[in-house]
Amino acid sequence: MRNVSQKLSIARGEQPAELLFKNAKLVNVLSGEIHPAHVAVEDGRVVGIGDYKARKTIDLRGAYLAPSLIDGHFHVESSMLMAPEFARAVVPHGTGAVVIDPHEYANVLGLDGIRYVLESSKNLPLDFFIMLPSCVPATSLETAGARITADDLRLMIGDERVAGVAELMNFPGVYLGTKSELAKIEAGKGKCIDGHAPGLRGKNLNAYILAGVRSDHESVEVPEAREKLRLGMHILLREGSTERNLAHLLPLVNAHNAVNCSFATDDKLAGDLVHEGHIDHCIRKCIKLGLPPITAIQIATINVARHYRLHNLGAIAPRYWADFIVFDDLKKFRVRQTYKKGVLVAEDGKYLGKSVARVPLPRSTMNLRYEPRNLVVAATRAKKIRVIEIVPDQIVTKEVITAPKIEDGEIVPDIGRDILKLVVVERHRATGNVGVGFVRGFKLKRGAIGSTVAHDAHNVVVAGTNDADILRVIEELARLQGGQVAVADGKVKAELGLPIAGLVSDRPLAEVMKRIDALNAAARSMGCDLDAPFMTLSFLSLSPIPQLKLTDQGLIDAVRLKKTTLFVT
Amino acid sequence: MRNVSQKLSIARGEQPAELLFKNAKLVNVLSGEIHPAHVAVEDGRVVGIGDYKARKTIDLRGAYLAPSLIDGHFHVESSMLMAPEFARAVVPHGTGAVVIDPHEYANVLGLDGIRYVLESSKNLPLDFFIMLPSCVPATSLETAGARITADDLRLMIGDERVAGVAELMNFPGVYLGTKSELAKIEAGKGKCIDGHAPGLRGKNLNAYILAGVRSDHESVEVPEAREKLRLGMHILLREGSTERNLAHLLPLVNAHNAVNCSFATDDKLAGDLVHEGHIDHCIRKCIKLGLPPITAIQIATINVARHYRLHNLGAIAPRYWADFIVFDDLKKFRVRQTYKKGVLVAEDGKYLGKSVARVPLPRSTMNLRYEPRNLVVAATRAKKIRVIEIVPDQIVTKEVITAPKIEDGEIVPDIGRDILKLVVVERHRATGNVGVGFVRGFKLKRGAIGSTVAHDAHNVVVAGTNDADILRVIEELARLQGGQVAVADGKVKAELGLPIAGLVSDRPLAEVMKRIDALNAAARSMGCDLDAPFMTLSFLSLSPIPQLKLTDQGLIDAVRLKKTTLFVT
Repeated sequence: MRNVSQKLSIARGEQPAELLFKNAKLVNVLSGEIHPAHVAVEDGRVVGIGDYKARKTIDLRGAYLAPSLIDGHFHVESSMLMAPEFARAVVPHGTGAVVIDPHEYANVLGLDGIRYVLESSKNLPLDFFIMLPSCVPATSLETAGARITADDLRLMIGDERVAGVAELMNFPGVYLGTKSELAKIEAGKGKCIDGHAPGLRGKNLNAYILAGVRSDHESVEVPEAREKLRLGMHILLREGSTERNLAHLLPLVNAHNAVNCSFATDDKLAGDLVHEGHIDHCIRKCIKLGLPPITAIQIATINVARHYRLHNLGAIAPRYWADFIVFDDLKKFRVRQTYKKGVLVAEDGKYLGKSVARVPLPRSTMNLRYEPRNLVVAATRAKKIRVIEIVPDQIVTKEVITAPKIEDGEIVPDIGRDILKLVVVERHRATGNVGVGFVRGFKLKRGAIGSTVAHDAHNVVVAGTNDADILRVIEELARLQGGQVAVADGKVKAELGLPIAGLVSDRPLAEVMKRIDALNAAARSMGCDLDAPFMTLSFLSLSPIPQLKLTDQGLIDAVRLKKTTLFVT
Repeated sequence: MRNVSQKLSIARGEQPAELLFKNAKLVNVLSGEIHPAHVAVEDGRVVGIGDYKARKTIDLRGAYLAPSLIDGHFHVESSMLMAPEFARAVVPHGTGAVVIDPHEYANVLGLDGIRYVLESSKNLPLDFFIMLPSCVPATSLETAGARITADDLRLMIGDERVAGVAELMNFPGVYLGTKSELAKIEAGKGKCIDGHAPGLRGKNLNAYILAGVRSDHESVEVPEAREKLRLGMHILLREGSTERNLAHLLPLVNAHNAVNCSFATDDKLAGDLVHEGHIDHCIRKCIKLGLPPITAIQIATINVARHYRLHNLGAIAPRYWADFIVFDDLKKFRVRQTYKKGVLVAEDGKYLGKSVARVPLPRSTMNLRYEPRNLVVAATRAKKIRVIEIVPDQIVTKEVITAPKIEDGEIVPDIGRDILKLVVVERHRATGNVGVGFVRGFKLKRGAIGSTVAHDAHNVVVAGTNDADILRVIEELARLQGGQVAVADGKVKAELGLPIAGLVSDRPLAEVMKRIDALNAAARSMGCDLDAPFMTLSFLSLSPIPQLKLTDQGLIDAVRLKKTTLFVT
C-alpha cells in the first residue's frame, strides 16, 4: 500500500480524506447486514468507515452502497469485444472485476494470446484476473493454433493477475491420472484450480476432485451441483447467453453454504450484456426467486473474491479498494452508479471510463489453404449419410442418419429438407485441412453464413446452401482477417470483422452490437429462425461435446471422441 | 500428494481403499448439511465419498462424522505442556489442529524458541501451525530474553507451517504507523496478519485495520466485536481458562457472517483442557446457547481453516486429510473418537497417539543475579505507597494507594490487610534487575509463591508474606531451571519444574496436572482463595495491561505505559 503514513493519518481522522461517501446504506457483506455508514476513501482505497471529514463529499442520501460485482468465470472472447469495450458494456451494470479464462485466445495464439489479454486489460475501470487455459488444444481431433503444456503454465502462473489454472475440461484425463493433466494442476499449486465436468458424478467425480480440482460451473440441475458442493467444489452458478442454470441451481443455495458459491456467465454476448446485464442480472434473478438480497450480493462479491484469492476486493472495509456500486432499491437492484478506486466510472447506464491507449494487436491469424474442389462431396454407393442436427439453444447436437440429395454424382445441400453443407477450413497453419459435412437446423433458404469463431480451435466454419456462397464467405473472412459474414447470391449481406485472433473486434461496442444485429437480421432474411445462428455455428466444431461435430479433420463422433465417416456403410 | 495414480485408481473404485468409514452421518461443513455417507480413506487422505470397497471397514452405525476441530489462536505455553503432552490433553476432545502463537517461547528464547516449537510439534496426531510472534519484547518496560524484528520474521515466514504474523499487540504502534510495526506486517505479506486490540474502536481501529491487520480475539462485548467484524476483521470467539467471551459475543454470529468467525482459547490450563475440553467445549456452549450445530461446527473447522489458509483441513471431502471426529449426539456433542490421517488417535477420552522421540530441549534460561538486600524497601518520608490490587479472574489490576506497614525502617508485608510483597527478578541476562512492590488480593497468611511464567518477559515473579520465604522460592526456581513453587516456613510445599524456557514442563500431562493441583492446594492452605493463584501471579508483570504492574524495572503505570514510583509523593 503506497503512502501508508498519509493514509493512516487520514484513517485516524487527523486530516481530511479525498472523498467521503456519506449517508450510505452500506451492504456489509462481511457482517452480513445492511447498516448506515459514511465511507472515507483516499487514493483509491477505503481508509475508514465513520464520521470522517473529506475534501469532497458524495451524499448518497440513503442509497445502498455495495462492493462492485465480480464474475467468477467468463470467456471474454464470447463478447467479441476488446477489454476496454467489454468494460464499457459491463461496468454500468456494476461489474468491478472478472475472472476470465482466455481459452479462445490461447487456442489461436497460445501464450501470446494470454499476454495480449493481460496487456490489453490494464488501466481499465474493471479488473481482469486470468485463469490460465489448461486445455489447448481441446482435443487432437481438430487443428488449433497453439498447444499449451504444464511448462507453459509455469511460465505465467507467478503473475499477480493470474489467479490459477482454468477449467480442466479434459476431465477424464484428470480422473484417470494422465501425467500431462496432473502436471497442469501441479503447475497451479498455491493458486486456484478450476474444473469443468458436465454430468460427472460418483466415483470418477471423486477422483477428479481428489486430483486437486476445486470448482465447477457445468452443473445444470441441483442433484449434480449438490454432489459437487458436498465433495468440496466451489459452485459457479452459471447464467450466460445460452447456458442459464441459475434458476435451476438456486434451491441448493442457502446461508450455510453460499460461501462456496459464485456467479459466472461463462459466455455472454455483447448485446445480452448491455441489455440484460451481467452479474447484476444474476442478483436480480436470485432476489426474484427468493434468495435474501444480502446472500445474493455476498455471492456476487466477497464469496468469489475469497475463492479466487482476490485480496482487497469484494467488500467495503479499510484497505479494500474503493470499488463500489450505488443503487436505490434492494429488490429491483438496478445499479445507478459504479465507482472504481473511488472514481465514478458509470452512471445511469452510461460508461464514464477514460479511453486508454490501445496496445499493439497480436499477429494475423488467418493462414488459409484451400481450393473450391475441397468442398465437393462425391456420392458413393453408400445410401445414407450422417447429418449434424442442431438442438436450439444447446451446444450438444444430435446425429441424424438420412439419405442424401445427389446431383451430378455429388452430395449437395437439400434446402427443402433443411440439410445444408457445413465446411470447416483450418486457418492457423495452412495445413489445407478442409472438413465437409451436412447440418440440419439452420433453415437457410439461400446463401451461407460463416465464422472464424468456432470452438475450440476456431477454424473457419461455414454453413451454406451452395458452394459459391460458401466460398464467398471464406474469401470475405480472409479479407477481414477473421470475423463473421452472411452472404447471399454472391453478395455480402452483413459482416463483423474480428481481426484480433479472428475472435474479437477492434471496433467500439456500439458498432459491434449493430453489426451483430445486422448479421442476425441477414441470417433471418435468408430463412434462419435460430436466436443466435452465429453462436450455434460456432459450437458445431466443438469436438468434446456430443453428439456429432465437424472439424477441419472431418466428422467427429463426439461421444466416442474419434473421427467418423460421412457415409454410413 | 504422493502416490497420486494409486489414490486416483482407488477413488475411481478400481481397487479397495485402505479404510472405509461406513454408515456415517456426515457433518458436511461445505454444503452446510448433515447427510448419510461412507468415506473412503487412503494413505491419510479422504479419497472418495460413496459406496467404496476397503480392506478395513469401520462401521459408524449412524454416528456423526465431522472434521476434526481447530483452535484459531492459542498460546501453547499456557498449558505448560510440551507439544506431545498437549496433544494428549486435547486430541481426545477432537482437536486436530491448532494455530499457535509461541509468544512466550519467543520472549524467552527468540527465534530459537519458535524453532523449538516447530521441531517439537512434528509427527504428532495434532497439527501445529505457527503465527510468528510480532511483539517481542512486549514493551521496553521489562527485560525479556529476546527481541524479534521484521527481519527475524522474514527468516521464518516461508516455512510451510507458518501461517502468518501473530497478534500485533502494539496496536498504537500499528495505527500510528510506526515503521517497525508496519515492517512486521509487510514481512507477513501473502499470509495472515493477526490483531490484538482490546477496546480499540472508531477511527484508530479503522487505521489499525487499514494497516493490514485482519483478525482480533480481544472483543468482550458485541458492540466492539460487531464494529471489528463490519470493518473486515475475522473474529476469534475466545473461550479460555480465564477469558470467557463466547457467551457474550454469540449474539453477533449468524449464518450470514459465521464464515468470518473462529473459536480460540488464547490461554487455557492443562486441567481445564482435560476436564472441560477445548474447541469441543466451545461448540457445546454455542449449541446450548442456540446456535445451529452446523454453524458451530463450521466455525470450529472450515471457517478457521479457510481464514488461516490451512489447505485440506477443516472439511471431509476428497484430498482433505482424514482428520475426523466421531460423536453420537448432535446436541450433547461429546467426541467419542478422534482420527488423524485415518488413524484412531483417541477414544472415549483416552489418548492413543504413539509416543514420539523427544527433540533436544532448548538451552537453560535461568540467569539470575540478585542479593537478599535487593528485596528490602526502605521507608521514606512519603506516607503512602502504590499497591497493585488483583481483580479476580482478570488480567487487569487496580492501583490502590494506601499507608504502608513499616518495621525497623522497612516497608514490610501487612498480612492483616492482605498487602504482600511482590518481587520480580530478571532471569534472562543476569542484569541484576530486581523490582519490588506490594500486592493485595492473594490473602496468603504465610509463605510465598513464585513463578517463572510471568507475562510477557517471563522473569521470576514472587508474592510473599516474608523475605525469607520469597528468597527460598527464588532459590528453588533457580534449582528447577524455572517453574512454579509454593514455600511456607522455609519449606517447599509444592512445585512444578518448567525447565523448557522456564515456561513448560518436561513431564507427562498427568504429572503436570497433579503438580498444578498440589500448587493450588498449597496456596489455598496458605490462605489464598483465588481460583488460579499462579495464573494471577503470572499476569502481574504484564506491563501493557492496565492499571498498575511490576516488572524487573520496577512499578509500571500500565495506563500511561511508563515507570512509576512505589511512594506517592
